[in-house]
Amino acid sequence: MLGALGKVGREVCAAVEAAEDLELVARVDAGDDLATLTEAGAEAVVDFTHPDVVMDNLRFCVEHDIHAVVGTTGFDDDRLATLGGWLEQHPATGVLIAPNFSVGAVLMMRFAAEAARFYESVEIVELHHPDKADAPSGTARRTAQLVAAARAEAGLGAPPDATSTALDGARGADVDGIRVHGLRIRGMVAHQEVVLGGLGETLTIRHDSMDRASFTPGVLLGLRRVADHPGLTVGLEAFLDA
Amino acid sequence: MLGALGKVGREVCAAVEAAEDLELVARVDAGDDLATLTEAGAEAVVDFTHPDVVMDNLRFCVEHDIHAVVGTTGFDDDRLATLGGWLEQHPATGVLIAPNFSVGAVLMMRFAAEAARFYESVEIVELHHPDKADAPSGTARRTAQLVAAARAEAGLGAPPDATSTALDGARGADVDGIRVHGLRIRGMVAHQEVVLGGLGETLTIRHDSMDRASFTPGVLLGLRRVADHPGLTVGLEAFLDA
Amino acid sequence: MLGALGKVGREVCAAVEAAEDLELVARVDAGDDLATLTEAGAEAVVDFTHPDVVMDNLRFCVEHDIHAVVGTTGFDDDRLATLGGWLEQHPATGVLIAPNFSVGAVLMMRFAAEAARFYESVEIVELHHPDKADAPSGTARRTAQLVAAARAEAGLGAPPDATSTALDGARGADVDGIRVHGLRIRGMVAHQEVVLGGLGETLTIRHDSMDRASFTPGVLLGLRRVADHPGLTVGLEAFLDA
Amino acid sequence: MLGALGKVGREVCAAVEAAEDLELVARVDAGDDLATLTEAGAEAVVDFTHPDVVMDNLRFCVEHDIHAVVGTTGFDDDRLATLGGWLEQHPATGVLIAPNFSVGAVLMMRFAAEAARFYESVEIVELHHPDKADAPSGTARRTAQLVAAARAEAGLGAPPDATSTALDGARGADVDGIRVHGLRIRGMVAHQEVVLGGLGETLTIRHDSMDRASFTPGVLLGLRRVADHPGLTVGLEAFLDA
Repeated sequence: MLGALGKVGREVCAAVEAAEDLELVARVDAGDDLATLTEAGAEAVVDFTHPDVVMDNLRFCVEHDIHAVVGTTGFDDDRLATLGGWLEQHPATGVLIAPNFSVGAVLMMRFAAEAARFYESVEIVELHHPDKADAPSGTARRTAQLVAAARAEAGLGAPPDATSTALDGARGADVDGIRVHGLRIRGMVAHQEVVLGGLGETLTIRHDSMDRASFTPGVLLGLRRVADHPGLTVGLEAFLDA
Repeated sequence: MLGALGKVGREVCAAVEAAEDLELVARVDAGDDLATLTEAGAEAVVDFTHPDVVMDNLRFCVEHDIHAVVGTTGFDDDRLATLGGWLEQHPATGVLIAPNFSVGAVLMMRFAAEAARFYESVEIVELHHPDKADAPSGTARRTAQLVAAARAEAGLGAPPDATSTALDGARGADVDGIRVHGLRIRGMVAHQEVVLGGLGETLTIRHDSMDRASFTPGVLLGLRRVADHPGLTVGLEAFLDA
Repeated sequence: MLGALGKVGREVCAAVEAAEDLELVARVDAGDDLATLTEAGAEAVVDFTHPDVVMDNLRFCVEHDIHAVVGTTGFDDDRLATLGGWLEQHPATGVLIAPNFSVGAVLMMRFAAEAARFYESVEIVELHHPDKADAPSGTARRTAQLVAAARAEAGLGAPPDATSTALDGARGADVDGIRVHGLRIRGMVAHQEVVLGGLGETLTIRHDSMDRASFTPGVLLGLRRVADHPGLTVGLEAFLDA
Repeated sequence: MLGALGKVGREVCAAVEAAEDLELVARVDAGDDLATLTEAGAEAVVDFTHPDVVMDNLRFCVEHDIHAVVGTTGFDDDRLATLGGWLEQHPATGVLIAPNFSVGAVLMMRFAAEAARFYESVEIVELHHPDKADAPSGTARRTAQLVAAARAEAGLGAPPDATSTALDGARGADVDGIRVHGLRIRGMVAHQEVVLGGLGETLTIRHDSMDRASFTPGVLLGLRRVADHPGLTVGLEAFLDA
């Protein structure tokens, strides 16, 4: 574990130790020597560190053929290209960069996009605690984009809407033609609902994240499958199939 | 039944006939003589007719001490005052004027207002078919007003909201300080959810109206209780207690 | 349309006429000559008739290279084998036999099975009108079987459950190790919710069928895609991908 | 605060300190002298201690005219009678004994009972984490009893149910004639839904408790209102009106 003393790192360490099929061989944090990893015989690392150090960490791992599952942020196209270059020389090594390790959020987005082709109407409702600064949430925007792309590909036009008189904001925000509504409610954590409808029926896909611990199953899934996905993978989605 | 041949009238007639404790003694429609009511010994009438004729119908009923349950629209303050004047002379007769006979919608509004005093946060989501012209719905606006009034009475300020960057409309419409979100989805009929939240818990009150027939239980409730509510009553709410 | 005068047939005819990319060329019902189909130049038929006549209808269609979308019931292994034999001689002709044309129900089952691999817990709640004779519903049983199979394939054991004292029935019915709960509520039509949960998060997939008309989009989907699926297909699922 | 060092006590202390209209004057735990309360000028105490000591605590409080809000368990009829005797001599002092301080749970039960009179059908679904030992939950049983009592008072018979073939448990547990269904799902905390239905409409009341902290608003409510309710009160319900 790289970033083993951080909040996330500690939870990942605990989860790895609790898993029967995984073994925690090294905890590394700021100031520690990366050689600890090779000495401990690490086959794969999890990196939740900082944008300033993650590239150095990954160069070391790739050079030593250690797979990596990365939740650290700050990957732009340049960084991804650099990383891809390193991996070309180590074709058996896999690196997973994921902005969101919640399996539920990833499945919700996938199912929403799959279902979108079959329904006239679709809207998104996200519900979060009232201390959140942005509306709608990043996940809701991303879902709307995926849904809009799936509709376009299926040849669907704008969802039907006969609204002729409305209060400002009553019909939500418009993200690529999809309506998105954000609620801010004390007691909530992070929740989202995608509502799809056609003649006489509706389909609703809802994800409720009640606890930050919800990212650990996705990290473990990444660890278990990263060796089967050599090269660079962006997004946990690709790991959900195999 | 006044307006017995109309769409609503026919459903009410069927419901009255199916009820063991009620008897349908007369079906009256445009062109029929109101004397049919007294000849048939009607104790109470249901009026779903037209604003042009409803006042004549009610004058006849009040004069003959027949209670009335009225779903016809178009009652302004003048009409209510006129009606109140007639009833003063017939103190045992009851008239119920209700804009909404859905027991569920009335209960949802009542519960929302009752609960609003105890929660930091509250928002309203309404979901309707996409042929609806106005957003938010009248019921959602009315609910927001009742909730806002209950909060004010309890000394609560604005619900917490740290949103600092938002897309237009993402946080819904503002009705008396309460956020209201309207979805338009094919396959839906008329649905509303009031979401309340405080430290570590949320309370959600949801009403789903799947069929126009949902007004008939409210009409029957009105018929059964109108004799116990002499004078003029506006809104089904007052009948839900006794 | 075969069975054009039946309740379903009439709705399908109306839906085909309303669709811009489809043309209704013949309405056939009991007593009509099947030759009407060839004379009218039918490329594909929809059959909602009766188990007694459906095989004769399909033999005629296959022999004349007319694709068929079939909602009529009563297909056992013998009938499917017979049909498969006919189709071997007409390799470009497609026949779709579907027990359920609700796209939403089919998607719900597919998504539930896909997600089941990633969650410790899963249970099913179905809600129907109180006149329904069987509990749980056929769709709920089928969903439970698919979910159980997906869990087994993923190497998951029984969902966690520490219940040590329970009232009879409190934990629902057991279908292949998956708990299924059936509610019977006046006002409901046909609804189902699959609830999946893991550490700190839950995923809920809900299908609400408010109206019998909900099968028509599935029938139209079948009509549009049957030519691209030569041979015999059982279940609408296979048509949702291409 | 009595029991100030316990898990609950610490959270209550923090909440009282954060409240502008309340002042925390004394933290008392096992071994401390109760005279601390009078010396500090406490007007009201919260007691989350132990059945073994709570009666001594309350005798001291009542004798010194200190109001009390009590979450400690173990109150049988004998204890309540003893407590009532003490209070007779101090008619201005109020004691609230509440088994459940969740405002949401109390409101859900109240609304369910109020609405039950108006609906043909009602069932209860409770969802909890899979480590829970009993099914259905105590709150669900209590809700079912309140709903059953309300229906009986309104003259309603058994809810309609035409089920003729069912798997064991499919229709849930029977609590006073009301069907109750318990789900056990990893990731859930404590949730309950009461589903009511009549002709063409349903009303759903849902309570989600995501965090143990959800009891603190109820405790603060008790503190603020206990002086206005002299004598013995059992259950937070009575405090929700004034």
